[in-house]
Amino acid sequence: MFTVYGMADSGNCYKVRLALEQLALPYRWVDVDPARGDTRSPEFLAMNSNGKVPTLELEDGSFLPESNAILHYLADSSRLLPAGRLERARVLQWMFFEQYSHEPYVAVARAILRYQPPDSPRRSELPRLLERGGRALAVMERHLESEPFFVDARYSIADIALYAYTHCAADGGFDLSAYPAVGAWLERVKAQPRHVPMAA
Amino acid sequence: MFTVYGMADSGNCYKVRLALEQLALPYRWVDVDPARGDTRSPEFLAMNSNGKVPTLELEDGSFLPESNAILHYLADSSRLLPAGRLERARVLQWMFFEQYSHEPYVAVARAILRYQPPDSPRRSELPRLLERGGRALAVMERHLESEPFFVDARYSIADIALYAYTHCAADGGFDLSAYPAVGAWLERVKAQPRHVPMAA
Repeated sequence: MFTVYGMADSGNCYKVRLALEQLALPYRWVDVDPARGDTRSPEFLAMNSNGKVPTLELEDGSFLPESNAILHYLADSSRLLPAGRLERARVLQWMFFEQYSHEPYVAVARAILRYQPPDSPRRSELPRLLERGGRALAVMERHLESEPFFVDARYSIADIALYAYTHCAADGGFDLSAYPAVGAWLERVKAQPRHVPMAA
Repeated sequence: MFTVYGMADSGNCYKVRLALEQLALPYRWVDVDPARGDTRSPEFLAMNSNGKVPTLELEDGSFLPESNAILHYLADSSRLLPAGRLERARVLQWMFFEQYSHEPYVAVARAILRYQPPDSPRRSELPRLLERGGRALAVMERHLESEPFFVDARYSIADIALYAYTHCAADGGFDLSAYPAVGAWLERVKAQPRHVPMAA
């Protein structure tokens, strides 16, 4: 059985839970709270020296960090990851896009509004985060105007990776009504078999 | 034949060139300068709507962006990418680490020192970039204290991805002498067959 060390309100951790649920893989969930310092403890750093959630414990007792690497591991040889060389690279294309061009803006704006006090100096980051996150949403909108899912016209871990922080982007101040193709894709993702929402 | 749309001084573009050279794959290189606005032109955005280099043109005329997705595509079924499910996920673990926890600090500090004027207000970002980039180098150091390469004791695209901006981290103000295991790994990477340096 897998063990997920994660935080329920983190999109990166939700990705892993959604994939485990959709692949019907049994797992145990251990709550880890970075704000409480849980990810900087010697015990946690021994599992993941980068001190981040999610971290997956495999059946052999070894540990795998990085949400999108975990998705790739779980989905390998399943319907959630195409087998073709180019299709796999395209799945990774969108997953690297998510971690570099989307998450650092869309997820961070949400984290500031949800976890920082109203007078936090970090609020000054919001205009830049909204501008850069809006660019990422526009790239997604353009792609989804002519495609039902991110790769090969079928649901994959690329969709799971991008769904995690896009579906709750309004928490960070993003107006999703400006991206109708993204909105329609969110509904298609939500309609997939064995979908589970982020909140526990 | 592949075509790389890239910028010679970019580590992300260098990754692709190094893999093509080491796999002995023929390619054409087209210089693209983001500072000149080349990546915001309608022609470039039609190839990659995210407006970034490198972008690879495949033999069928389609385009693949994201340096690490390109590495995965090029190295698939080669000695540079292990075949096992867990080993592949570990390669991706380090490549996602590179794009999320390393490049945004190590590469950005270098870009500010190389391309911004000495009185640029962006210099105020440097202390934070050096602190966060130093954390990434410390994670690498800890791993390399007991491993010759990032995954499975052999050279792979995980090493190529991390070498690209680590070997020139001093350009961004990082002191690599503080990371001796990283320094020894840089030498092992440089000694690989068909290695080419970043500068043209």
